[in-house]
Amino acid sequence: MTTIAVIPGDGIGPEVTAPALDVLDALGLDARTDVLGHVNADTYLRTGQALSEADLDRIRPCRATLLGAVGDPRLGDTAYVRSILTTLRLELDLYVNYRPVKLWHDRLSPLREPSRRAVDCVIVRENTEGLYSGVGGSTRTGTDHEIAMDVDLSTHQGVARVLDFAFSVARTSVCLVDKANAVRNGGQLWQRCWRAAQDRHPHVATSHLYVDAAAMRLATDPTAFDVIVTNNSYGDILSDLTAALAGGIGVAASANLNPTTGQGLFEPVHGSAPDIAGAGTANPLAAILSVALLAEHLGRADQAERVRGAVAAAVARGHVTPDLGGSLGTKEAGAAVLAELAR
Amino acid sequence: MTTIAVIPGDGIGPEVTAPALDVLDALGLDARTDVLGHVNADTYLRTGQALSEADLDRIRPCRATLLGAVGDPRLGDTAYVRSILTTLRLELDLYVNYRPVKLWHDRLSPLREPSRRAVDCVIVRENTEGLYSGVGGSTRTGTDHEIAMDVDLSTHQGVARVLDFAFSVARTSVCLVDKANAVRNGGQLWQRCWRAAQDRHPHVATSHLYVDAAAMRLATDPTAFDVIVTNNSYGDILSDLTAALAGGIGVAASANLNPTTGQGLFEPVHGSAPDIAGAGTANPLAAILSVALLAEHLGRADQAERVRGAVAAAVARGHVTPDLGGSLGTKEAGAAVLAELAR
Ligand SMILES: CC(C)[C@H](C(=O)O)[C@@H](O)C(=O)O
Ligand SMILES: CC(C)[C@H](C(=O)O)[C@@H](O)C(=O)O
Repeated sequence: MTTIAVIPGDGIGPEVTAPALDVLDALGLDARTDVLGHVNADTYLRTGQALSEADLDRIRPCRATLLGAVGDPRLGDTAYVRSILTTLRLELDLYVNYRPVKLWHDRLSPLREPSRRAVDCVIVRENTEGLYSGVGGSTRTGTDHEIAMDVDLSTHQGVARVLDFAFSVARTSVCLVDKANAVRNGGQLWQRCWRAAQDRHPHVATSHLYVDAAAMRLATDPTAFDVIVTNNSYGDILSDLTAALAGGIGVAASANLNPTTGQGLFEPVHGSAPDIAGAGTANPLAAILSVALLAEHLGRADQAERVRGAVAAAVARGHVTPDLGGSLGTKEAGAAVLAELAR
Repeated sequence: MTTIAVIPGDGIGPEVTAPALDVLDALGLDARTDVLGHVNADTYLRTGQALSEADLDRIRPCRATLLGAVGDPRLGDTAYVRSILTTLRLELDLYVNYRPVKLWHDRLSPLREPSRRAVDCVIVRENTEGLYSGVGGSTRTGTDHEIAMDVDLSTHQGVARVLDFAFSVARTSVCLVDKANAVRNGGQLWQRCWRAAQDRHPHVATSHLYVDAAAMRLATDPTAFDVIVTNNSYGDILSDLTAALAGGIGVAASANLNPTTGQGLFEPVHGSAPDIAGAGTANPLAAILSVALLAEHLGRADQAERVRGAVAAAVARGHVTPDLGGSLGTKEAGAAVLAELAR
């Protein structure tokens, strides 16, 4: 039996995790959950540490972790959010951030041209390096002469492995997005690794765009893409942009994966949304779709498809929260998916 | 009499510069041009240097430089493009990249919801630091163990001055975009400078978004913004994204400014577009609108408005290139603006 660690987290995190766990239950996977309810801002405020060594020892043996959301307005986001999210990504070496984006219903597209609405692509984001490396510092800190540096770090090993992953999930094509025309050192390394990856995967069509051009293309025709592979920072930006073209953050799920160890962390792309926390209106679909990714990760692609089918049906019926044009609360929207699953 | 340096550059650069110079002529500014026709890829290929000290000596005394586009497929973009664009930005310390984006006609918007189409905002992009600092390097270069680093550099002086500029051009509000929740050192410096800038400009409304959320918001409702201020890399991405929501790269103009010395470099946001170079189909409006920014810079806001009015009229009549749904060539589209100017 597999153990799934669960971190509901802060704000709307616990609210969307509850229906996601109901869906997980309904799938009848051979799995039990280990809920770390205390990994949140309250604990951080009390102890100065959100995620202890003991917590990590509980998470490490799990093939999958489900996370709700972390972030708290009392804390400022930098150190606290990093202390959970970035720590888990780095500690478990979850080097792939896998973000599929699919338009669940035509009405959710903000685009005018009908033929360009049906986005169905994946952003593969490098998840352990880049501007998230934590390397850097500042001097004359706090003065009028402060100089701050954050290192955008790329390693051959880190780039090569995420490129290989991107090719491994391509259905038709892989598009590399970088800024090799301006950001020299990493740019050249990514380009070299890219050529080598192309040679290793000669049967996959490829293309390349600078990140500014990619943002432009996505905003006008996201249907042009199958798999986009890019670094940590551009992946952060482009995955949110693409999500906006497919109904927004309320339906954006993600998997943080280490394909080598087989571990994964599954989370909605949205944050803890303190402005609506407690109101019972948060959209649970991103968390539920994260459960689909989790099921797939555990070898149950059939169950993942069931969840996605149920989500598509609930969306089609308009049984959704206000962000998607419906009028249901979090619980009711979760129940709507469960009802579809039971059909 | 003011001297305006002109660098037509590569690819479609010279093609769009020609009509832009015709428009400049028609404005009757008290200015003459000094055309540096040899600053291009051919020169770089022959001499290894695109922009010599002698060229810089011609450019430095000019209050304004007009640039067409640089980039050449024979060269790979990194070193060559940097050797002109980044060099000019750094040598002249053009610390503001000012990118106004305006929807010239409803039909050009890719957005479905009519009330969200009329984007009219400015991206103020820091233009001398960030990931474009050139600081960094690589080790074990060319091996399977290469490590590459590019430093995202922020200085107190650099951040404070671009924030002040952003406040100075605000009509209603300024939105800071950063990633302080993940990119620690620069993030904290920007946040501190931001609070100080808010104190210096207490009558301007302000807001703050992380870059991923900003991309999402822009893609669905660009009318929510007046001035966006951000670092070099995010400014590059967000200004192209916003341009895509207002007719695309064919109408995106930019000014690289040093408000202290009064110098400016004016250029369309698009590149040299080698794929269509020589075809005579490139859209000259971005170059022409760059001339409007140049006129404004030289204290002729009246003439800038004349140019914008002429562009709006030509767009409204459909006297435009194919990228905007018309059927004119570069020359004819330029002539259409001249005709409107002459009305
Ligand atoms: C060509 C490239 C280096 C440049 C940049 O990123 O600054 C361009 O995209 C721009 O936005 O002016
Ligand atoms: C909260 C933040 C640090 C995080 C990130 O940028 O990685 C989030 O935006 C995401 O995309 O998962």
